[in-house]
Amino acid sequence: MSSARQKLPPTILVIFGATGDLTKRRLIPGLYNLYKDGYLKEDFLVVGAARTKLSDQAFAERLKPALSEFSRSGLDLKVWERFAAKLAYHPLNADNPEDFLTLAQKLRASQIARDGERLNFIFYLATSPEHFAIIASNLKSAGLIADPQDTSQSTVLVIEKPFGHNLESALELNNALRSSFKEKQIFRIDHYLGKETVQNILAFRFANSIFEPLWNNRYVDHIQISVCEDVGVGSRSVYFDQTGMLRDMVQNHILQMLSLLCFEPPYALNDADAIRNEKVKVLKSIKRLSAEEIEKTIVRGRYGSGVAKGEPVVGYLQEEGISGSSFTETFVALKLEIENWRWCGVPIYIRNGKRLAKRITELAVFFKKPPLSLFRGRGLNDLEQNVLSIQVQPSESLSVKISSKPPGPGFRLNPVEMNFNYESFKAVSLDAYERLMLDVFKSDPSLFIRNDEIEEAWRIIDPIIDQWRSGGGSPLVEYAAGGWGPKEADLLIQESGRSWREL
Amino acid sequence: MSSARQKLPPTILVIFGATGDLTKRRLIPGLYNLYKDGYLKEDFLVVGAARTKLSDQAFAERLKPALSEFSRSGLDLKVWERFAAKLAYHPLNADNPEDFLTLAQKLRASQIARDGERLNFIFYLATSPEHFAIIASNLKSAGLIADPQDTSQSTVLVIEKPFGHNLESALELNNALRSSFKEKQIFRIDHYLGKETVQNILAFRFANSIFEPLWNNRYVDHIQISVCEDVGVGSRSVYFDQTGMLRDMVQNHILQMLSLLCFEPPYALNDADAIRNEKVKVLKSIKRLSAEEIEKTIVRGRYGSGVAKGEPVVGYLQEEGISGSSFTETFVALKLEIENWRWCGVPIYIRNGKRLAKRITELAVFFKKPPLSLFRGRGLNDLEQNVLSIQVQPSESLSVKISSKPPGPGFRLNPVEMNFNYESFKAVSLDAYERLMLDVFKSDPSLFIRNDEIEEAWRIIDPIIDQWRSGGGSPLVEYAAGGWGPKEADLLIQESGRSWREL
Repeated sequence: MSSARQKLPPTILVIFGATGDLTKRRLIPGLYNLYKDGYLKEDFLVVGAARTKLSDQAFAERLKPALSEFSRSGLDLKVWERFAAKLAYHPLNADNPEDFLTLAQKLRASQIARDGERLNFIFYLATSPEHFAIIASNLKSAGLIADPQDTSQSTVLVIEKPFGHNLESALELNNALRSSFKEKQIFRIDHYLGKETVQNILAFRFANSIFEPLWNNRYVDHIQISVCEDVGVGSRSVYFDQTGMLRDMVQNHILQMLSLLCFEPPYALNDADAIRNEKVKVLKSIKRLSAEEIEKTIVRGRYGSGVAKGEPVVGYLQEEGISGSSFTETFVALKLEIENWRWCGVPIYIRNGKRLAKRITELAVFFKKPPLSLFRGRGLNDLEQNVLSIQVQPSESLSVKISSKPPGPGFRLNPVEMNFNYESFKAVSLDAYERLMLDVFKSDPSLFIRNDEIEEAWRIIDPIIDQWRSGGGSPLVEYAAGGWGPKEADLLIQESGRSWREL
Repeated sequence: MSSARQKLPPTILVIFGATGDLTKRRLIPGLYNLYKDGYLKEDFLVVGAARTKLSDQAFAERLKPALSEFSRSGLDLKVWERFAAKLAYHPLNADNPEDFLTLAQKLRASQIARDGERLNFIFYLATSPEHFAIIASNLKSAGLIADPQDTSQSTVLVIEKPFGHNLESALELNNALRSSFKEKQIFRIDHYLGKETVQNILAFRFANSIFEPLWNNRYVDHIQISVCEDVGVGSRSVYFDQTGMLRDMVQNHILQMLSLLCFEPPYALNDADAIRNEKVKVLKSIKRLSAEEIEKTIVRGRYGSGVAKGEPVVGYLQEEGISGSSFTETFVALKLEIENWRWCGVPIYIRNGKRLAKRITELAVFFKKPPLSLFRGRGLNDLEQNVLSIQVQPSESLSVKISSKPPGPGFRLNPVEMNFNYESFKAVSLDAYERLMLDVFKSDPSLFIRNDEIEEAWRIIDPIIDQWRSGGGSPLVEYAAGGWGPKEADLLIQESGRSWREL
């Protein structure tokens, strides 16, 4: 999170899983745009690594069409030519230490750093997680990991979720990585943290004086986090069916956003650990649920058939790759509480599902009603709640709903939205991956997740999954594709006299 | 302030000064539109009264062209025909009791009220104030003033400012009126209180929970009230030169807006006295200034020649009707303090002048900066202040300035405005006079000024004028027409490290 277009040290980025989807859709288009816009200068090299045997040229050629499709700025052939010269390829079997030795030779031979200049390595694991540990170990054996004390070079390992599938496996993965890397060298990416509005939570809360005084249980009635997808399980069916919504989204993206929304002001924002210490405190404060509470306050659903974007769609069990005996949830609604001084008594309602009516991600802070309706003598007994809404997807915007007197005689009240949209800045927004990769080049871990955050998140999620696995919890209910989820989710929030925000 | 288009009692409105400017520009166009839009039904009558001898028809005919010019909806001939049938005229000399007796006969003869139905009288004094007392007395002698206890009829006297030119004359005027009318029958009009955004101050503050917690000296740094005119003294030169800016605008409109912005929540909003009790408390809390403070914290100016809307314009002393020895101020800037628990320590800066760069009226609440810049490590030591701005003229809008992170890498901060504009309601706004006249028809005094408010305002203003009259206070400084007033006004606010908002 430091200033833009600064001079970066010469860097070699090695992507493992270079023939995969993430590389094609996100990483290469992101790097291309960072280069095109001048954030990456000339002194970097991208080395693709995967099993397939390819020449440097062939690697570049197979990525070119992906750029036209996935780059936010399209493909400029002149830029591409210069960018492609920075792409290399190294065929490699993750299990084979020999291949890492030849990789090391290749990296050392590359002359992008001038004599005595700092040279950084980034190892980006765009592979499936079962390869993480062996790659880390082979990198170590090949002597490719710099000592963190060494100021002449740095090494960063970037990994993507899933970071385990429960606390035990997360600890195991972490132990494996930590036998090769130090914690501060491990950048766990959560691309939601690269989104502008998510980062802007920091600006709203701490660069303004008018929000923070209201940001507590004295003025906030409740919080709603909605992460709604309109698509079904799609091509990820096998992975998703083993995972479910709670682990795929709530454990990471949603708890991360919640942490930023609710954490205490860190002592500094240019100190990654200062931020992450406060985030982990929020996770530790989330009330652990009893078996009875898990049953009553967590709704799980699975989409049936229905209509999406005007087309009939099949139910989850009819999707390709899903077994008829699956018990995986495609929807969850839950009520959490943060048991600390600031938030105690403020329920946090979360809903998250596939095949809903709309694609939208929103954090909404509902403020309490005024203590008294001074307008009651005018027939206005019931005042509306003020709502501050941070929309993360599809468009990034901030709005505040307030009550106002519409023009005309008499005295009525109508809600109006005050808002601003990022488009008003007329600045080009980096996509979340670009933003986060640039932070990797800068070795700035502020927006990456520390291991204890992962662990605390699993401590929240594990008991729920365990109870479900053992046949407990609320039943898995079916909901029609294209709607807003099962009616049980509505009942969950209605129990307290509240209701889901219309999105 | 009750609900719209309710059934009103049959009413006769008598306008004294019916051949004058106010009648032509404001009152008749306002009544016409209230009738056209269905707020006034059929059972009312408007009687013009003035010295000129005119028939009912001639009175109507001379008003017709004014409607095309001044009515917000223009002139619809069909509506006009029906409306003109409700206009009558009674030639009258304000000093002559006989004329009031014939007026009384005429009013009693009018058959707009059915037997036994309540019939209301409104006497609107659109004359110069020296006639107020005698008209009131003659109305009483003619038996035209209902007993306030009488539920079968009501009488309202509407008067326009100036309500005296100092405390003594205000008390005198009031005593004169009170020998004929009861205080609750006297509606003192301040058309600023008929403006949508001014009334909306009540909605913002009391129909929302997010403003009131911030609305005090803990979070507010200071308040700025700017009432800027771009025109010069115009055709009112003789009156204005006797009055000056402080008495013409600050004593009434500006102190009224300040009261609504800063008063404590009344115990009810449908009780006119509950509102006015709290307003008068604000006025009583305004710190009385010592002679030294008057000299140091009140700037007075007079426009010299300059450029307005691209045209050269003369200075005040060269305006028609202004004597070369005039010492009248056309600009004031002042710093006030409200010495109560809520506002103590929050300076209120007021600037008000003619021939300034722009026509704009704005109330701006500046919040304190966040207690600490968490962004200091990122080179952002100095955070901006949040500002809530209520624009009253030329357009009516509410905006909040907040700091936000603009899209892109790194972490910078940029101010953005969140706002909403009344146009978004797509409702037809009544003009301020229409609104207030409708309240007169409803006998609702909430938006009218009670006598003790007038008196308290003079208690604030009188010592300043007295000191100026006796040759004290800050010197009358000249400023160029078309700018933002004298540099002394800038120095006044800069002394505390603040500055005027750019408008």
